Amino acid sequence: MNSSKRSEGIAPFHVMDILARAKALETQGRDIIHLEIGEPDFPTPEPVIQAAMQAIQSIDMHYTPSLGLPELRQAIAGFYRTRYTVEMPASRIAVTPGASGALMLALGVVLDAGDEVLMADPGYPCNRHFAHFIDALPVAVPVGPDTSFQLTPDLVDQHWTPKTRAVLLASPSNPTGTLARNEDIRDIARLCLERNAVLIVDEIYHGLVYGAAPQTALAHSDQVFVVNSFSKYFHMTGWRLGWLAAPDWAMNDIERLAQNLYLAAPTPAQYGALAAFVDDNLAILESRRLELQARRDFLAPALKETGFGLPVKPEGAFYLYADVSRFTTDSFEFARQLLEEAGVAITPGLDFGVVTPERYVRFAYTRPLPVLGEAVSRIRRFVS
Amino acid sequence: MNSSKRSEGIAPFHVMDILARAKALETQGRDIIHLEIGEPDFPTPEPVIQAAMQAIQSIDMHYTPSLGLPELRQAIAGFYRTRYTVEMPASRIAVTPGASGALMLALGVVLDAGDEVLMADPGYPCNRHFAHFIDALPVAVPVGPDTSFQLTPDLVDQHWTPKTRAVLLASPSNPTGTLARNEDIRDIARLCLERNAVLIVDEIYHGLVYGAAPQTALAHSDQVFVVNSFSKYFHMTGWRLGWLAAPDWAMNDIERLAQNLYLAAPTPAQYGALAAFVDDNLAILESRRLELQARRDFLAPALKETGFGLPVKPEGAFYLYADVSRFTTDSFEFARQLLEEAGVAITPGLDFGVVTPERYVRFAYTRPLPVLGEAVSRIRRFVS
Repeated sequence: MNSSKRSEGIAPFHVMDILARAKALETQGRDIIHLEIGEPDFPTPEPVIQAAMQAIQSIDMHYTPSLGLPELRQAIAGFYRTRYTVEMPASRIAVTPGASGALMLALGVVLDAGDEVLMADPGYPCNRHFAHFIDALPVAVPVGPDTSFQLTPDLVDQHWTPKTRAVLLASPSNPTGTLARNEDIRDIARLCLERNAVLIVDEIYHGLVYGAAPQTALAHSDQVFVVNSFSKYFHMTGWRLGWLAAPDWAMNDIERLAQNLYLAAPTPAQYGALAAFVDDNLAILESRRLELQARRDFLAPALKETGFGLPVKPEGAFYLYADVSRFTTDSFEFARQLLEEAGVAITPGLDFGVVTPERYVRFAYTRPLPVLGEAVSRIRRFVS
Repeated sequence: MNSSKRSEGIAPFHVMDILARAKALETQGRDIIHLEIGEPDFPTPEPVIQAAMQAIQSIDMHYTPSLGLPELRQAIAGFYRTRYTVEMPASRIAVTPGASGALMLALGVVLDAGDEVLMADPGYPCNRHFAHFIDALPVAVPVGPDTSFQLTPDLVDQHWTPKTRAVLLASPSNPTGTLARNEDIRDIARLCLERNAVLIVDEIYHGLVYGAAPQTALAHSDQVFVVNSFSKYFHMTGWRLGWLAAPDWAMNDIERLAQNLYLAAPTPAQYGALAAFVDDNLAILESRRLELQARRDFLAPALKETGFGLPVKPEGAFYLYADVSRFTTDSFEFARQLLEEAGVAITPGLDFGVVTPERYVRFAYTRPLPVLGEAVSRIRRFVS
């Protein structure tokens, strides 16, 4: 019996081999520092926990409407108002099971089989895998330090074909932590609109930016799709909650897709998330953002001094995408040996695309500063 | 701007029109009895609530492994052992975000674009919509009272084409509440295996059967896919948790799909579900099953006496699929008028397929007995 080509065409995460080996080494008693994990190490903030528990005790945890609790959709709209001074009607917001659910809705409502969607390479692998899952064609656009690893209007134009139906930006990007420029987002949105295509912007890491706060793509156009998540900035990974902001014309279809594909996002998570936007919680999030910034400000220069290339300053998320060409021509083998010999787990570039992945590795600074310090010591010994 | 054909091809739920009108009437002060909702009216059982709250307070709600908490996969395997005396290794179980997630994995790992999947008509509409979403072709096989509204080996054989790649059974069925025969499940599984196709069995309502307990399809073959859910029998709808039991050969692909399509099922729900199989909880579930049985035993004969056709005794779930041809040639209009004039909301056959839907409506006995009694009085007045 064979699996579908659909599923065989989805590449495994190479970091899983690293993880499996890391666990095996840990079983043998080795101390492993995990810098491969794209999950913040902080627990769910207390206000969210309290709100969820209060609801679980006092309200039946039945299905919510498919687009989410009305009061949560309102709270998200309110967040756009206070954080970005963008008027975003709650009617254009769908609460989803994680950003994964939001991506499924956005790609599903836009793409038919054979349609092309442009995305940066390197990029988050699930994006291209999801497009492939629904028989659309993800088109990897090579990006490098010259454009901060981001798509630009020129690059989009160069890769446009008659089958192009969508462009996917991620800002800040996973794995590079870099931002797209406001004017580029605006111009790509305009270009898409002129050509009867849509711009989808992944703003999952939007709250985790360490310089000037970026503007949401929703400020530039009411025709863009924005994917967001309660996992990263809000530190609610396991609750599996995100949202999609979409143009008016798509909302009926989005609701129908939601009804059919997952019914509704988890109810306890939605009640918990009602506390995500209150001042007490935002203060916790801000202190964690500063902690992540301190980690970046320690790790980035330390890696540079050690010989890693960081040609573009990563402005957000919790990732450093480091050039290892001074040490190796094979970043996967480099990651494997770093784990084996130094006990530091990182993610090889291979997981993020097909354009010179052998040249890069990703560090996730999802461990406290003292652990990062120990990691840097080990890495220094390893490469010297 | 247009939506994809993919999303336009997914029909709306006609019951949503009924629901919207019901809400409008309620706003006007009318008392509406809701028998259209496919959700049990019981709250989450207390042991599950306690287990979830305990976990939320004491464990970081981070991502679980993509296939689920190992101890929950073990608990599900244990349930197959004690309830069905079937040895099902935990390694063949994937914990999913609702049965929706399980269906997505099963169809995704089996079907490519253009592949056909046979399913009974009438049936649960999301099944065919999901197949359509991934560019596969759902083939509606007309079924009627003569086969208890279930597929049989003969029907499957008659509708088989070179493109047939999967058969989907639902037992008990939504909307009919009928069971497939053990020997039919076994023979269809064998037929699929001989023809290099797979049998997927929806056992979402399996715990809610009011006569002899049926055997799981997993007892007949280690090559079938079984979709199950914590929503219905376990009364955990809003938690969004289900599982998929699958053949060994599919598990690597299923894990990769899970990693890419949703990362992991909700963590609080998984910890709650660990208490789903303990004796205290099973006792609660049993008392609720008996309550649902009492409702069926009241409602089915009452509807029959009133002139509704129930040619096959519904043995499970919480649905009655009633023939209204004595009253009307248009069940949608019948449902609309029943709501308008009698204040009883039901689901028109139109939502469950294309084969003579105008002849049927679905009653969900998800309201307490006294409410059902009032509903029957109103219906009697309406049809007399």
